This record gives sequence, C-alpha cells and structure tokens, in this order.
Amino acid sequence: MRILSILPFQTVNTLTSVCPQIGLNITQICLAKECSEDEVKELLKLNEDPRVHGVYLHLPPASLTSRVLNTLKPEKDVNGISDLNMGRLVRGDLSKGFVPPVASAVLDLLENHDAPLGGKSVLLVGEDGPLGVALQCLIERSGMVALKSQWRSKSLQTQVNEPTIEMSSKSGFRYLTAAYRSQVHLFVFVSVLAPFAYSILANVVRSGRRWLQEQQYRPWQLRSLKLQPLTPVPSDIEISRAQTPKPVDQLAEEIGLLPEELEAYGRSKAKVRLSLLDRLHAQPDGKYVLVAGITPTPLGEGKSTVTIGLVQALSAHLKLNSFACLRQPSQGPTFGVKGGAAGGGYAQVIPMEEFNLHLTGDIHAITAANNLVAAAIDARMLHEATQSDKALFSRLVPSVNGVRRFSPIQISRLNRLGINKTDPASLTPEEISTFVRLDLDPSKITWQRVLDTNDRFLRKITVGQASTEKGQIRETGFDIAVASEIMAILALADSLEDMKNRLARMVVGTSRSGEPVTAEDLGVSGALAVLMKDAIKPTLMQTLEGTPVFVHAGPFANIAHGNSSVLADKLALKLVGRDGFVVTEAGFGADIGMEKFFNIKCRASGLRPNVVVLVATVRALKMHGGGPNVSAGAPLPREYIDENLSLVAGGCHSNLRKQIQIAHLFGVPVVVALNVFRTDTQAEIDLVCQLAKECGASDAVPCHHWAQGGRGSLELAQAVNEAASRPSNFQFLYNKEMPIVEKIRTIAKKVYGADDIKLSPEAEAKIDYYSQQGYGSLPICMAKTHLSLSHMPDKKGAPTGFVLPIRDVRASIGAGFVYPLVGTMSTMPGLPTRPCFYDIDLDPVTEEITGLF
Amino acid sequence: MRILSILPFQTVNTLTSVCPQIGLNITQICLAKECSEDEVKELLKLNEDPRVHGVYLHLPPASLTSRVLNTLKPEKDVNGISDLNMGRLVRGDLSKGFVPPVASAVLDLLENHDAPLGGKSVLLVGEDGPLGVALQCLIERSGMVALKSQWRSKSLQTQVNEPTIEMSSKSGFRYLTAAYRSQVHLFVFVSVLAPFAYSILANVVRSGRRWLQEQQYRPWQLRSLKLQPLTPVPSDIEISRAQTPKPVDQLAEEIGLLPEELEAYGRSKAKVRLSLLDRLHAQPDGKYVLVAGITPTPLGEGKSTVTIGLVQALSAHLKLNSFACLRQPSQGPTFGVKGGAAGGGYAQVIPMEEFNLHLTGDIHAITAANNLVAAAIDARMLHEATQSDKALFSRLVPSVNGVRRFSPIQISRLNRLGINKTDPASLTPEEISTFVRLDLDPSKITWQRVLDTNDRFLRKITVGQASTEKGQIRETGFDIAVASEIMAILALADSLEDMKNRLARMVVGTSRSGEPVTAEDLGVSGALAVLMKDAIKPTLMQTLEGTPVFVHAGPFANIAHGNSSVLADKLALKLVGRDGFVVTEAGFGADIGMEKFFNIKCRASGLRPNVVVLVATVRALKMHGGGPNVSAGAPLPREYIDENLSLVAGGCHSNLRKQIQIAHLFGVPVVVALNVFRTDTQAEIDLVCQLAKECGASDAVPCHHWAQGGRGSLELAQAVNEAASRPSNFQFLYNKEMPIVEKIRTIAKKVYGADDIKLSPEAEAKIDYYSQQGYGSLPICMAKTHLSLSHMPDKKGAPTGFVLPIRDVRASIGAGFVYPLVGTMSTMPGLPTRPCFYDIDLDPVTEEITGLF
Repeated sequence: MRILSILPFQTVNTLTSVCPQIGLNITQICLAKECSEDEVKELLKLNEDPRVHGVYLHLPPASLTSRVLNTLKPEKDVNGISDLNMGRLVRGDLSKGFVPPVASAVLDLLENHDAPLGGKSVLLVGEDGPLGVALQCLIERSGMVALKSQWRSKSLQTQVNEPTIEMSSKSGFRYLTAAYRSQVHLFVFVSVLAPFAYSILANVVRSGRRWLQEQQYRPWQLRSLKLQPLTPVPSDIEISRAQTPKPVDQLAEEIGLLPEELEAYGRSKAKVRLSLLDRLHAQPDGKYVLVAGITPTPLGEGKSTVTIGLVQALSAHLKLNSFACLRQPSQGPTFGVKGGAAGGGYAQVIPMEEFNLHLTGDIHAITAANNLVAAAIDARMLHEATQSDKALFSRLVPSVNGVRRFSPIQISRLNRLGINKTDPASLTPEEISTFVRLDLDPSKITWQRVLDTNDRFLRKITVGQASTEKGQIRETGFDIAVASEIMAILALADSLEDMKNRLARMVVGTSRSGEPVTAEDLGVSGALAVLMKDAIKPTLMQTLEGTPVFVHAGPFANIAHGNSSVLADKLALKLVGRDGFVVTEAGFGADIGMEKFFNIKCRASGLRPNVVVLVATVRALKMHGGGPNVSAGAPLPREYIDENLSLVAGGCHSNLRKQIQIAHLFGVPVVVALNVFRTDTQAEIDLVCQLAKECGASDAVPCHHWAQGGRGSLELAQAVNEAASRPSNFQFLYNKEMPIVEKIRTIAKKVYGADDIKLSPEAEAKIDYYSQQGYGSLPICMAKTHLSLSHMPDKKGAPTGFVLPIRDVRASIGAGFVYPLVGTMSTMPGLPTRPCFYDIDLDPVTEEITGLF
Repeated sequence: MRILSILPFQTVNTLTSVCPQIGLNITQICLAKECSEDEVKELLKLNEDPRVHGVYLHLPPASLTSRVLNTLKPEKDVNGISDLNMGRLVRGDLSKGFVPPVASAVLDLLENHDAPLGGKSVLLVGEDGPLGVALQCLIERSGMVALKSQWRSKSLQTQVNEPTIEMSSKSGFRYLTAAYRSQVHLFVFVSVLAPFAYSILANVVRSGRRWLQEQQYRPWQLRSLKLQPLTPVPSDIEISRAQTPKPVDQLAEEIGLLPEELEAYGRSKAKVRLSLLDRLHAQPDGKYVLVAGITPTPLGEGKSTVTIGLVQALSAHLKLNSFACLRQPSQGPTFGVKGGAAGGGYAQVIPMEEFNLHLTGDIHAITAANNLVAAAIDARMLHEATQSDKALFSRLVPSVNGVRRFSPIQISRLNRLGINKTDPASLTPEEISTFVRLDLDPSKITWQRVLDTNDRFLRKITVGQASTEKGQIRETGFDIAVASEIMAILALADSLEDMKNRLARMVVGTSRSGEPVTAEDLGVSGALAVLMKDAIKPTLMQTLEGTPVFVHAGPFANIAHGNSSVLADKLALKLVGRDGFVVTEAGFGADIGMEKFFNIKCRASGLRPNVVVLVATVRALKMHGGGPNVSAGAPLPREYIDENLSLVAGGCHSNLRKQIQIAHLFGVPVVVALNVFRTDTQAEIDLVCQLAKECGASDAVPCHHWAQGGRGSLELAQAVNEAASRPSNFQFLYNKEMPIVEKIRTIAKKVYGADDIKLSPEAEAKIDYYSQQGYGSLPICMAKTHLSLSHMPDKKGAPTGFVLPIRDVRASIGAGFVYPLVGTMSTMPGLPTRPCFYDIDLDPVTEEITGLF
C-alpha cells in the first residue's frame, strides 16, 4: 500500500517515520510555493496508479481550487476534502468516503474524554470552512450539540460560558485573550501531530482495505435489465433494439473491473486489459462449463442461444456471478445466408449489430496481419528472383551512415541457420547466400490471403499478372478471415509474449530444399505482433438481461479448433470468482468442437472443465432416429412437426447416447439441454429428458430461453449448478507424445466410432515430414464434416463399421496443431442469389438498422 | 428547456401550471409508492437526454440511497441533493452546483425581511439532514450566526429566547407547544409552495443558462502538454512515447464537447457524433486555413508537420482555439517504405502508433464495404450465367409464407427501369428479365477489390478459377484500400444520408447494352451504409502539445481528391468558434491537392477558405532552381547541403511564384511557410522569405516546428492570424456546368501552365459517354504526377510550352467527380526488398513499440 502526500512547502510530519514501521510505502512530493494549478493537476495523474491507495494533498486553501479538487479521485482522497466526500459526510454515508483526518482526530479525542458526551454542547470556534461543517456533522451525529462562533464574534464571551467542550484551531489561537483562556473548560488543540497522522494513516488503511475487498470474490451487485418477452417472439434485431444496454463502464464496475483495466470502444463495448490476470492471480477460478451439441441438422440446434440463456439464468435470476465467453462471428456470412450470430430471441448479446459487425476490429487486425505475411512472401520471391546475392544482402542489411548492422530479427534467422555471427562483414559468400535466400518453392506455399467477405471468386486465383511482377505468376487463393492461422493463434495464446512467439513460428511454405520457412524468416513477425496488440484483449459486452459476455476470437471449427479464446476464459474465471460460472461454447457437435476443446484448448490453457452442457433438439434427434433429410431452404417434412416418439427415441439411443459417452471419455459430467421448439410436444420433451438420463447424463432439462430469456433456462441453470458441485475427473484422450498416426487413430476409433483409419500416400508422406521436422508431438485437429459422427454427412445416428479416410495432413505450427483432412473443406463461403444484404438497411435519421436477422 | 420531476406519490404543486407560462417544458413522472431503487435508476437514463436541463427528484429520504444519488447527474440535479453539489455548497463554490431550492427559498425570505440581518442569530430547528447543513452554510455565509436545535431538545426553550430569527419545517411543527409558539419572533414556515417552486425554476433556468453558455464561443481552457525538445531530435516514436497524452474525454471536455457526443476508442482516441452539428448550428464558424505545398521532391517537404506545428503554436502558445484536420494514412505503406504519417519530430499526433495502425477502424470498414460490392458483382454474374429468368426471379423475390414481395431496394431498381409496379405477380416476362438481369459486361467492370496492404502481386489477377465458379474467370485487380471510391465518398459526404445516397449511386460497371450498373442495382447499398455507419464519425486525437486533431478519411490524391473529410472540417469549425482556426492539409503540391480542395471539396461542403499556407523547403526550391536529381534512398548531392543562393532564387522565381499565383487564381491570400532543415543557411532562409513576398505572398516565415514544436511555429501562427483577418475573395476556377473538355482545359492551362490538352480517342469516347449519361456537370479530379506542374515528372520549376495528354477518363459517380488520367497511376504500392517491418517490434512486457519511424 502506498500513500502519497503533495506538500507545497516543507512540512515535517510524523508520516514519513511512521509509515515504514507499519508496512506502508509513502512518497512525499514537495512543490514550490508558487506552483500552478496545472502542476498540481499534472501530479494527480498518480490517481491512475493502482499501487497508490491514498493521496493526501496538503495545500493552502487557495490552491485547492475546484479544478484541483475535481481531479482528485474521491476513492483516494484520504484527506476527505473532495466535494463528493464532503457531500457523503454531510449525508451521513461513510461507507465509501473518507472523514477528514483532523475531524476524526478531534472525534477520537472527544471519545477518550472521561465524562460521557451525550447531550453535551460543543462550541466550535473559528472553523467556518468545510472542516467546520464536517466537525459539526460528526459532533451532532454522536449525540452532542454543536455551536459555532467566529473568533471575533461579539457573543463569543457569553457563549464561552455555556458549552462544556470547546474546539479551536491553532491558527486562531492568537486571537484569544488571556481572560478568555482562563475560562476554558476543556480546550482541544486541533493541530496536534500524532493523532492527526494517525487519522491519515487510518484512512489510508481504510482505502487499502476497500481495495483489497474489491479484489476478493463477492457476489456481483449486477443491475439486471428486465425482459418482458412478447408473443409471438419478434425478430432478433427488434428484440435487441428494444433493450437499452447498460453503459459498458457501469457493467465493468459491477463485475469488479477497475477503470484502468477497461478500454471503451463506444458505449456498449470495451476491451479488457490482460493486467487483470496479474491483479487477480491469487483469486480462485470459478466453475468452467462447456456447451457442446449432438450432431446437428444443417439448420443448427442453438448452442449459442443455450449458452446465452444459461448465463442470463445464472446471473440475472440465480444471482450467481457468471460470464459467457463467445466466439466473434465472421462478418462475411452476416451478409450472405446466415444472418447474425449473437444468439437469438430473448437470449442475445446486445447490441447485436455491434456484435456482428466490426466489433472492436480484431478480425480486421487478423486480416491485415495475415495479408502482410502474404505480401511479404510474394515480394520476397520477386526480389530473390531478380537480384544477385550481393544486391539482396546490401539491401537487406543496408549501410546506415556507413555502418551495416543486422536487425534482431535477422540475427534470429542467422542463429536458426547455424551462422553464429553478428558482424555483416564477416559472412562468407555462401553464408550470405543462405541468409538472403529463403528460396521458397512457389508450389509449396501454404499461406493463403484472407478477406472477411464471402467472395467465392477468390477461392482460386492467379496473382502477379501485371508487368511490374515480371512474370512471377502463381496460383493461390483467399480464405475467409476467420480461417487464418492467426485467428487460431489468437484463440490459443495465453499472453502477448506467447502470441508473439506463435506468430514468429508460423510456417508459410517450404524452401526448394525442403526446409520450412517461417514468418520470422520473412522478417515480419514483430510487425504482426504490433498489428495484433489490441486484438489480444477480449471484448466485454452484455446479454439482453445485462449480464457480462466476453467476445474473443472465432477460429474455424474444421481446419482449426473452433473455440473462443483461452484468455477470455481465464479473465472470466477470475472475475466470476470461486462460486461463479464461466460458460463457453465449442463449434459443431461434441465429436468435433468438444474433442478439440479438451485435447487442444484445455491442453494449451491448463484449465479443467467442470460440466459439459450437451444441446439437443427434438428435430435433430428425430433426424438421427431415422427421420427424412433436413436441408436449409426446404420446408421441414411432417415428421418434424408432428409428434413422433419412436424417431425421438431412436435419436436418443444413437447420437445422443454416443455424444454423452464421448464427454465421459474425458471424465466430465454431462447435463443435456433440450432446446425446445414451438412444435415439440410434452411427451417428446419428457421422453428426451428420461432417455438422456438413462444414457448417463447427470441431468436433462428442457430450455425455453428463446421465448423467455433467462427465466426459461432456470431449470438448466440449477442442473448445471448441481452438476458443477460434483467431482470432475478430467483427463486427455491421448498423450501428445504418441505418434501422429496413433493420435489420429485414437480419435477416429474412440470418438467417431470408426473401425480404423486409412491414410492416403500424401497423408503418410506429410506425417513423415512433420515428424521429422519435430512437429510430431503437436495435438491433432481433425477437419471432418460436422453433419455426421463419421466422414459421411448422410450417415446420421451413431454410425459404426467404417474406416475413416485421411486424405491429406496439414499443420498450423504457430497455432500448434496438425490437421488431418477428412474430405474437402471449403474455407471461403459464397453469396447466394439473394444474399441477406438485400434486406439490410440503415435509417439515416434514427440510425436504426433493419434486416440484420 | 425541460425540467423533469420524479414524484413517488401524488404531489400537486405549482410547477406544472407555472412552467408553460414561462416557456419551460415539464414532464412529471409519478412512481408507485413502493418503487424500487432499480426503477428510479432506470428513469435516470433521462440524465443522458440533452434536452433535459433539470431533474427534480421528489422522493422520501429513504429512497434517496447512495446508488440513486450517484446516478443523478450533478449538472442536472436542480434539487441540489447529490453529494457533489452538497460538497460544493459546503465549500462555497456555487459556480457549478445548485443550492437546494428549499434553502434558497428560505434565504430569499430572509432577505425580504425588513430589518438588516447582519450579525443576527438564526435558530434552525429540526433540520438535521443535508438541508439543515445547507441552510446553515448559507446563513453563515450571509453574515448571520446559525444555531441548531433538535425539536425535542431540552435546551430548546432556553435557546428560543436568544435568536432573532427562527426556521422550522412543516413536519416538525406539531411538536411545538402553544407556549413556545407565542414566543416566536419571526417564524418562517418553510414548505410554502410559491417560493419553493420559484426556486426550483430558478435552478432550472440556471442549468439551462449554463448549457447555453457551453454552446457559445469561448476561448478553450486547454491544458497544454509541455514540451522539452531535445537536441539532437530523437526518433518520432521515441518523442511520441515520451509524452503522455491527456485522456481523450478530458480533451473533449476542454474543447466544449458534451460527454454524449463522444464515443471513446481506448484512452486516447474517440469518435465524435455528428449531432454536434445540430447543437452548434447557430455558432459562427472559425477561420479556415489550407496547408498546401510547392511541387515536392520525392522525399516530401513536410506539409503534415507544418500543419501540426501550426496548430500547436496557435492553440498552445497563442491561446487561440485551433484544430488540425488530417487524413488517416493507409496502413500499407507504414510497413513498406514510408513509415508513419503522424507528423514528425516535435510536431506530431500522439500516440503515433494508434494514428498509423487501425485507428478507429474506418479504413477496415471501407475495405469491408468495397469488397462486399466486389463479391456481389461476381456472384451476381455467376448466378445470372447459370440460372433462367424464372429461377432468378423466384430466388430474388422469394415466397415467404406464400407471399412474394419486393424489398425497398428492389422497388428503387424497378423505378429506375421505368417499371412502376409493386406486385411481383404483375410483371411481364420481359419485365422480369429486365429486372433480374443486370447483364454486366465482364470486360467493363470498373470496380476493383481493395486491401490495406502493399501487395503488388494483386495488381493484376485472374479470379474464379475454382471449379465451383464454373469457368466464369475474369481478369481484375486489387487497389490499396484508400484508393476505393468509398474513401472518396467518406471524405465528401456531409451527412449520413448524403453518404448513403452516394454509396447507392456508385457505378460498378456497364451492362452489355451500355447502361451503368450501380451499387443499388446490386441490392447492396443499405448494407454498405450499415458497414460505414461508424466510419462517418471523425476521430479525435491530440498533438504532442495536447491540442485537438481530427483524423478522418484519406482518399488518394491522384485518382481521388486527396483531402480529409468535409465533416471533420465542419465539426472543427463549429468547435473552434468565431476567433478560432481550423487547419487542414491537401495532398501533393498546390497544383493538385489545393486545386482539388477548392474545386471539389469546397464545392461539396460550401465552406470558404481564409488563408493558404504554402509549404516550401530550401531543398525543393534548389531542385526547381536547377539542382541535380533528388531520389529516395540515394545520398543528397552536395548542392543540397551547402549554401547555394542562386539555385534557391531559381526555385523561388519558378515553382514558388507559380504556386502562389495558383492560390491567387482562387482569390485566397498566401502565407509561405519555409520548413527549415538543419543544413539551411540564414542567407538562404532570408532569401526565400524575401522572394516569396516579392512573388505576392502576404507573408513568408521560417518554421522550426520539427525541432521545437509549436514554439518553433509561432511566427507562422502570427502570420496566419494576420492574413486571416484580411478579406478573402474566394472563387471557383470553373463553372461546373461547362463541358467536361473545357473544364479539363481550364485546369491544364491556368493551373499547370500547359498550352493546351490533347485527348486520346478513348478519352474522347468516355467523355461523350459520361456527358450522355448525365455526368457532364461533375467537377474534374485530375490524375497527374505530383512531381512536376506538368505531366512530365522530371520537368521541375514551372514548365511551359507543353500540351497535356489525356490518356483516358474515368468517373467516380458516387464520390461525384470525373477523373482524367494523365499518365499511368499506380493504385497498389509494393514492398521493397527490405520493408520497414524488419525494424518494427513490440516488447511483450512493456507493450512498447519500436521501429515505427
């Protein structure tokens, strides 16, 4: 704890000697007597230092101008002189403010007076400023009567005979006549140093204690936003617009964030600084809940809405601290076929248009970083193709004022090449050649460009056709931005340093001699970290009921791991504290998203989940039970609208049972959340809940969050709270040191239910290459269809008796996983004939958006 | 003005009847007696309504909890009950707060008492809450003595004999004995309605008056940041890092922005809402200053630093309100050859890394919007190529619950096609075909994709090569993002509605029948407006000396107009007020940037400039005077380092004289700012200043902002202030109704000094086409080299005797100009062999950036 005293002229007091004895740090700053208001305000930047718990401004009254007082933070004003603290004292609210130390010293003295004080009169002489008012309030509040008088008042002599106690202050002492002095009954001389210093210290200790309390777990004082759900349920954007979000700084304060940990982006979004992890490192984590799903229909079964409904129920209804950690959606599909991704109905993140568009620019930063790498690759190949070793060297290591020096990033490359030299002049011609030539094989460049737009015509393109590129044309393509390896890195990094190292390690292609070429070899990794320095901070938003949400990272769920960021989960687990909940979501079905959550994300983060919520719908269960094909755009067959208990039972006994078993492979209890649709019958709902429990779920409950918000998810919240109190015996599915092939086989057999795997020759060759390059101990990230447990999208239920074909194997070295390809994955969506954008519009006067889902 | 009263139970008072009579609006909200704290807080959202100037909370004391009081905005708390207002009253600072109306009513009554009050004693009975404290403070401050007593106090009967005036309140009246009442000297019954209502109204009027004062021009109370320039001048990033910017909300308050007009993006950047223009519409504009330059060397002559240095001098030293309006730099060149663009030395915008990277996402938004148009074009061509009219129609106008409807954007298209029908069923097959087929000619698509990356390999590419695109391949290319027409639109739009209309008008290509196809035809214009809704708000930042800067838009200066936004200038002109200055910068030399500023930007905005600052350097003047070639990367020839008065004189008499004359064509006075370099001799400096004045400049002064900050630009600031006080007779160079060819000829002859122009056949055909399409009255935006007044980059000085060749003519219909191409313009820069990014790095612990210039 530190106290800061700003002294305008030399004042010696006991503070500096007492503080070290009781373990407080004190810094004393002495100002020149004629110091300006601006200089004092400049010093008050110390308000922002979280290590400073008290600022004691010892200034002459004339220097305590309104501007200075308004700059002083009330929660650090241990002198109790700010207007806010004075107002609190007058109102009698001492829970947050500070009593001026002089006043508390006087009150302490009075309390140590041997006679009982109640009903006594106290004459206050000569203190007519705020201090006098403070004294008077405190005296009156302790049951005495306060009388005030001016020093030169005519009536002083008569008044002085009346009171039983009298207060004065040093500066006025000289006005007292000898005659008067002889009449004093009890004279309290205010400016005594010892109790005064003690009172300052008491306030500092009080400030520090409040600060410490803020660090501790406590149930949030969350002002929830009221929902009044309408029937029929309006469109998502109408529901979102009808609710006014709390200012994000208010939300942040409610959940225990300090103002200096917040970076607002407009009114309803803010980035949260990672320094929070240091501040709360001793705080126990909350419970960690993963929302996964059974194998979905192509329409999706509502994992996001379940996630949001669950935290709305936990926070706003059960009053348990809880956080949802969501993925940031790609902006491309928002304008294509999908619409928004902020939840739906009465379980949404608001404002939904901010969630769906731009957010705080993270995906834009990823796009910029990804494409800087791509530009660097092609430019480098051009420069290497058109310049001699010598010319390349003299440009790469230019002479600045006659001196050539390697930059740190070049020295890293030299070290990797085994050239342990730092003087450019000492390199041999061979070493120069090795150093300046990445010698990238154009046919083995794996790095693609990205855009956050559904632009199908960029799937396969030829670049370099302008004459300025001198014939260096090659085929390549664009992916959607969220498919960038940099997105996967953002989601897995656990610090700025870790992100920077991962960015440097990214392999962009292979040299003609077969060596991997990295972002660091291109000299671009520092710039990438600079571009990504804000993206690493998670974005705070809120649900429709005003409960907190982190939105951070959204990697692809097939070629990447499909989970939101490690850092958002870690921050949230600290913020909710011991009895709180962090609910996060894994992409696709549990066979994909959950498996990767456990084997990749939990491995990277070291976090251990307490409960899995498995989302099911009567619709998807009927499909797995043998119902007809479900496809987007086509009307649903009657089986899905009418009651059909045998189809439901079939789905429960096949896909639901298998997905519960998968979660149990990892030792985590499962609660089945049945996302109820309007057409579901009570018998169907009851059947699912009964069978799910028979299949091993800890509990199974229906959820009505879409129509009712958090209130509709109360049963789920209670079931999750109950399940989280039981022990979870988390374990990984495989040891990462196992050979790559064995890891793939383990997932295929244990998770998908395959009899075995079959590798193509390309896949075998790649596995050999990666093992030889030292990437053999990376975890596996399967790129498989999400529409079946197998590799065949039309095989529903729980297929058996199949061999999983591994077409090819790729690796994201920076993100840290090897990804086998099971079938063809599209990494760039297209636009349909009539994209969503036809309906999206903005009213230029009200600024209201329409048509965004 | 409005007053709001929240009444928990029915209270009839005179307010509702009096308010309308004196022109105040009052809204009375009655709450249920048992209303919760949250409901009251919810109502206090009215704090945010700028039309509400007072909130009078009439609640029982128990409901005035700390949370409620802390939610009430002190500047609207006309009841004076918030802690902050009470603290101000106790301290005696009544300039900002409010006195509780009851207390002022009592004081008014006392003042109307016929006997003089000074020295009288006043007994306050029964008011021991904050109101009692307020009364006591006011009574004492007016020279009386205040005595307080409890109603049931034993000493009341004795005290009551003493005072000359006595206060009470209604609720306590019943405790008075008849005996006591008979002894009353002057009894003031507090809860009288009339003066009470009057006092509330007085506070509301006070609040409204303060609000009005805030709208008026006043010199800012700007806390400038101190500079202590070092020698030698450190690197830009080091200087930037060494200065701590003011929190942006503090800066905003200093320059008169209301909190609700600000949207913070982190600590040091904020977007400013356009509602400011409505609030300040009656405020007179400040002076409008354009910074332009002589024809530069390839190294640039420092217009940005002059601009920033000038506002630092005006604001921080001359204490004149002033704003710099700057362009947002492209992020691409930051990693290429150019480095940052935030100024340099001690004239910079800080934090420079925030300025140079991402900023508040405007360029990212432009990239997203631009590429959505591109994706829509190719997808539409594919869908048209592969579907029948009927299939297209049934998808474009889908049946939703059995009903087909046109969306508003489709009805716009039908109207443009002359089909005045709204029922989809009523269209004839021919009309359906016309409606569904844009029939874009692939060889006449002018819309390019963009990226904010220097990616030369994307200059010319072939897209659509994946099998999914069914052979619809075509050649196209990427431009750098700032070359997008959407950037030019952002810079010229003067409202959200104007921007939306311009986006809809953008022509993306031509149909096979020769008709222009617009973004609205593609159905995408509403989505574009949604993507751009935040980008339209300018971003507030600050200079190294803490003076305000708007950063907004940065269109290319050759194929577009190269000036920052109209909206930023308009907002800034209102904020600086009558005697203030807005300094903005035009790209390239005055022949290009200034000409476009006047003929395009001023035409769009209606704003009229007062002064042109023409930036010159001894280096560039020597080049124009006949000095050897200057090129980036190569060492400067000796002529540029040693004194050479004849070269300097040559440059002044040629290029400088001509550029001054160009400004005079528009009727605006010119101040020449000589950006002094370390190698310039005093004789050279004196010569430039002398010759510049001989050439017609109002004044010519040396500037030392790079080494000294604002202090080094004081002379320039004084010269500009002086020149701005003279009349400016601004006029356009041409009438926009002139034929396109005549407008081009006028610019070529009068501005560039050409003898005539020569059109290629393509250019002639295009001009005919544009004229016929109704685009003939658009202003002209010349795309010409900036390295010479002519089209020949190596012709320095003021070339004559040449004919300007017009190679081709294009048009940006949304932005609203026709752009003739004089030579080949690169719209996608490349990366050199050793790009800047080699030196850019981030310290993961301190988060400090290195190597960014």
